[in-house]
Amino acid sequence: MKYWSQMRALSSPKAARKTDIRSAANPVPVFRFRLRITAGKRIAIGPGKVALLEAIRATGSLTAAAKSLEMSYRRAWLLLDELNKSLETPAVESAQGGEHGGGSRLTPVGEQLVAIYRRIEGNAAASNARDIKRLLAMLAD
Amino acid sequence: MKYWSQMRALSSPKAARKTDIRSAANPVPVFRFRLRITAGKRIAIGPGKVALLEAIRATGSLTAAAKSLEMSYRRAWLLLDELNKSLETPAVESAQGGEHGGGSRLTPVGEQLVAIYRRIEGNAAASNARDIKRLLAMLAD
Repeated sequence: MKYWSQMRALSSPKAARKTDIRSAANPVPVFRFRLRITAGKRIAIGPGKVALLEAIRATGSLTAAAKSLEMSYRRAWLLLDELNKSLETPAVESAQGGEHGGGSRLTPVGEQLVAIYRRIEGNAAASNARDIKRLLAMLAD
Repeated sequence: MKYWSQMRALSSPKAARKTDIRSAANPVPVFRFRLRITAGKRIAIGPGKVALLEAIRATGSLTAAAKSLEMSYRRAWLLLDELNKSLETPAVESAQGGEHGGGSRLTPVGEQLVAIYRRIEGNAAASNARDIKRLLAMLAD
């Protein structure tokens, strides 16, 4: 049961860092699922886009979301544009006054997307707990 | 049930390509899980290393495995070295005569690692089938 607490903590990078109590030379192994939906070479939905949606929800604007992710505004804008173009309905709506001026918030579709994506990650970790333990047990101390 | 056949095909990139029957402008979306075990900044186990193990198993040598993955020998060697150092027991053993001369094959630990890793991927896709369908249904046609 050695790694159980790490496995529980995976979905949040911040939580994973908190559990990183061993020395830098011998860090605690962390297991992560990353899911992507690709359409050709384009990543329609992936971890970067979902993290951006969560940051927009937390900060209320694309500018602040980009900053919180240490990402350029341009990069965040491009990610969001690609996501919105991939979806039947946009994930984010911006208030009047332009994206730099007004705020941005998730649409119901954006909220649903984040919820389903994170649920899949959590469920994948939970339903594979025994095999994940087996892989972790193969690692050198 | 529109995307079911794609969802079934995810674990193998080759199978995913086979299902790519729409035009390049409007390709079939493909869902992929990628799992990584990281220790600090090092990726101990991840998709690249598992693909390399499978290629070594298929070809019987690191040189041929690297070639089949369109990877330099040096890159393949470094990946394998990092993997072996991460594990309690090495995943690959090389015949006498050096890695360029003799062949390489998976150890029982290497075989087990590949089997568990692919089982986790398959199980993660199967146990999240309904949510994966929900995400795919949110994409524009």
